[in-house]
Amino acid sequence: MNGRMIARVLGLVLLILAALLLLPLLTALVYGESAAPFALTIGVAVVVGAVLTFGFKPESTELYAKEGFAVVGLSWIVMSLLGAVPFVLSGDIPNYLDAVFETASGLTTTGASILTDVESLSRSGMFWRCFTHWIGGMGVLVFVMAVLPMGEGRAMHIMRAEVPGPTVGKLVPRARKTATILYLIYMGLTVAEAIFLLCGGMSFYEAILHAFATAGTGGFSTRAASIGAFDSAYIEMVIAGFLVLFGTNFNLFYLLLIGRAKEALKSEELHWYLGIVLASTLAIALGIFRMYDGFGTALRHAFFNTMTCVSTAGFGTEDFTTWPGYIQTMLVLLMFIGGCAGSTGGGLKLSRVMLLVKTAAADVARMVRPRRVTRVQMDHRRVSRETTDAVYTYFALYMLLLLGCAFIVSFDGYDFATNFTAALSCMSNIGPGLSLIGPSGNFAIFSPLSKAAMVLTMLCGRLEIYAILILFIPSTWKKR
Amino acid sequence: MNGRMIARVLGLVLLILAALLLLPLLTALVYGESAAPFALTIGVAVVVGAVLTFGFKPESTELYAKEGFAVVGLSWIVMSLLGAVPFVLSGDIPNYLDAVFETASGLTTTGASILTDVESLSRSGMFWRCFTHWIGGMGVLVFVMAVLPMGEGRAMHIMRAEVPGPTVGKLVPRARKTATILYLIYMGLTVAEAIFLLCGGMSFYEAILHAFATAGTGGFSTRAASIGAFDSAYIEMVIAGFLVLFGTNFNLFYLLLIGRAKEALKSEELHWYLGIVLASTLAIALGIFRMYDGFGTALRHAFFNTMTCVSTAGFGTEDFTTWPGYIQTMLVLLMFIGGCAGSTGGGLKLSRVMLLVKTAAADVARMVRPRRVTRVQMDHRRVSRETTDAVYTYFALYMLLLLGCAFIVSFDGYDFATNFTAALSCMSNIGPGLSLIGPSGNFAIFSPLSKAAMVLTMLCGRLEIYAILILFIPSTWKKR
Repeated sequence: MNGRMIARVLGLVLLILAALLLLPLLTALVYGESAAPFALTIGVAVVVGAVLTFGFKPESTELYAKEGFAVVGLSWIVMSLLGAVPFVLSGDIPNYLDAVFETASGLTTTGASILTDVESLSRSGMFWRCFTHWIGGMGVLVFVMAVLPMGEGRAMHIMRAEVPGPTVGKLVPRARKTATILYLIYMGLTVAEAIFLLCGGMSFYEAILHAFATAGTGGFSTRAASIGAFDSAYIEMVIAGFLVLFGTNFNLFYLLLIGRAKEALKSEELHWYLGIVLASTLAIALGIFRMYDGFGTALRHAFFNTMTCVSTAGFGTEDFTTWPGYIQTMLVLLMFIGGCAGSTGGGLKLSRVMLLVKTAAADVARMVRPRRVTRVQMDHRRVSRETTDAVYTYFALYMLLLLGCAFIVSFDGYDFATNFTAALSCMSNIGPGLSLIGPSGNFAIFSPLSKAAMVLTMLCGRLEIYAILILFIPSTWKKR
Repeated sequence: MNGRMIARVLGLVLLILAALLLLPLLTALVYGESAAPFALTIGVAVVVGAVLTFGFKPESTELYAKEGFAVVGLSWIVMSLLGAVPFVLSGDIPNYLDAVFETASGLTTTGASILTDVESLSRSGMFWRCFTHWIGGMGVLVFVMAVLPMGEGRAMHIMRAEVPGPTVGKLVPRARKTATILYLIYMGLTVAEAIFLLCGGMSFYEAILHAFATAGTGGFSTRAASIGAFDSAYIEMVIAGFLVLFGTNFNLFYLLLIGRAKEALKSEELHWYLGIVLASTLAIALGIFRMYDGFGTALRHAFFNTMTCVSTAGFGTEDFTTWPGYIQTMLVLLMFIGGCAGSTGGGLKLSRVMLLVKTAAADVARMVRPRRVTRVQMDHRRVSRETTDAVYTYFALYMLLLLGCAFIVSFDGYDFATNFTAALSCMSNIGPGLSLIGPSGNFAIFSPLSKAAMVLTMLCGRLEIYAILILFIPSTWKKR
């Protein structure tokens, strides 16, 4: 383990966090709130960050795969722990563990909240809360790579750990340039959404915050009633529309930008994604149109809730627990699947589910015709057995961690639907669940043990398990 | 597809079914009930069976792997369809689909029931209902092999499809002899349990029926309150003790019989199995002892419910939905795991779960140290990548089918816990679930569509998916 190099990267992450915290500090100044909580946190981050970055001279700047994973996992834990401090100092969330939960939920773009009264938050606290979604959506380490010089091998290791999906697509030969392009697309789309929301009558402040939450597919809102509070079909359609975009593989936008639209539109994952969105919207609309005045309204609610589930944002408009049972199960299945690889969406990721289904089908076909070679293909290219094995492993770990989290949560004594969907919500980075944590409930009810387990589960979900799991393996910490 | 050979095996299965139906017919005669329902069914089975067996002269007696699977799947469907007829003719279960559900639930040793008043069944109907557990526990095709001459290759293909577990252990070089030994052990244990139950004051009739239900780890009882109706610690301990045995790999009993006890006791799966039983019993007892008079009573209920869940029998004594939440989640996890490979228990099978955990751990370790070879071992022998891949595939298919079944069931509009545990109950061949289908509920509430889906899910669970799935693949039916 190259401890000095890891310390250095952690230091850089702290310095970036300090820079990011300037925005909520500015917000506090603008709205005449105390800027001290953010100023103090920035001070700590700068001092510790500087010591770590410049105090340790690494003997080697190399970073092996396992160190890439470990540094990403550690960075996210440090960010959650330090990012929680302003909430405690300002009194917005007096309990530190609750503040860590809220921050981790924000950074991992889960959007599960322990707040019972969201609207009583300070303006700057509210800003920071939604901003964590935006930071976590694309990832901070990707940002580290975008702005700081770093060797190629190192960069790819980090990228693999932080960018979701079964394989990492390099847009351009250099990982650093890829990261920059991804960030520019991400910013562009966020600004575009904020403008659309402004046009719909939202205030500047709320437009920005909801754009942050949509971009990260997080789901925090400034209102207790979430998007439902605005009661505007336009706003709902803007957010649902942008969720379609943020749930798509960002590589496709890059292809569009450089004029290779044909190639982008050929993506198999995109076809499945749009197919699922369309089918689910229609199926839900058919199931609820008698509950609303007209098929149009039903379609609107169906589209919004399909997108909020499949993108794992978790915004709310209607209380879908009052809808027919099959729709609830369908929405839970959508949450399982999640967004496309390389998007900010959570869940298993669609391309993984596709590979899972295709590989399972091929394995079954092999039983029928053992002598015929059955190959798994994606985008007309053969997928290696190594990749499909990795998908199987991921699925198994995903289910084991999900069940493990549900088990720990069950000690709090709530009902099965609450326990199970709370674990699913954390693992898939969704936000709400069913029963006690449905659209109108919240996570304040759980014990400290459950909350701590959920924080780890959320981090596992966002960082695709390995970056967190690796920290708990003793041999990771052995000297090399 | 060798249609003639498949017809012939199906014919043999029907003839055996006719022979097995003689027992409930005899029961009807003893208790002075009408024997006509059974006589008629036997008549049909004999005629159709004879025509299929002797009417088609197969050009080749060979059976490929896929035909082995297909013939097992078809046999179980035919047995469920025909085994349901006596229930309808006698008026015990007037609705044919309900009768098929009850028969399939019996044969697959699920033990889920659509009956709202079990105790009103005729004596012979009750006998047939519990007897299906015993038949299905070991499997009918295994019996076909035990009593009828059949080539070696053919026999192994069938055995692989009907005997649960990731790999089939051949006790002796010839599959036919293996089948005979398995059946003799099965019968011996069943008789032993019936004698123990007789000593506890059960009537001869009830002792036999409960021995059938325990042997198959099915869970049907003659009483509405299940085993709780007897209110006897002795009877509970006998049943729980025999569930430990019937949840164990039968190969170990064979090793014991031939004096190789040391080898049997070294089995890694056995160690995990006993460890899980012990740990779970203690954990549950600690959680409930304040609800009962003394730790002894708590231990008794804890042991019984651990066994009824991990063996997937699903007998009931106490209403565990009144126990603390974490115990319910723990019991659901036990149901997921299920019994050992080569036992009559359901679920994923313990050795599969072990391989899943070990392979996932090895895959994670490979990320930490990519250059070191990490091997998965079981019983100190290396497990091939082929086997672990098959376990992954099985797990993925298992979860996909489970979620699929839950989705179909959710159209009935019940709550999430009901839908999800109903699907789990069918897939893992357990019996009861939580919420509306808890220990005091039953499956009569579901729609015909859900019941049909559940029948297929139960069959998938018992036959480990492939034998049923293969019937739905078009290329299975192409001429070779």
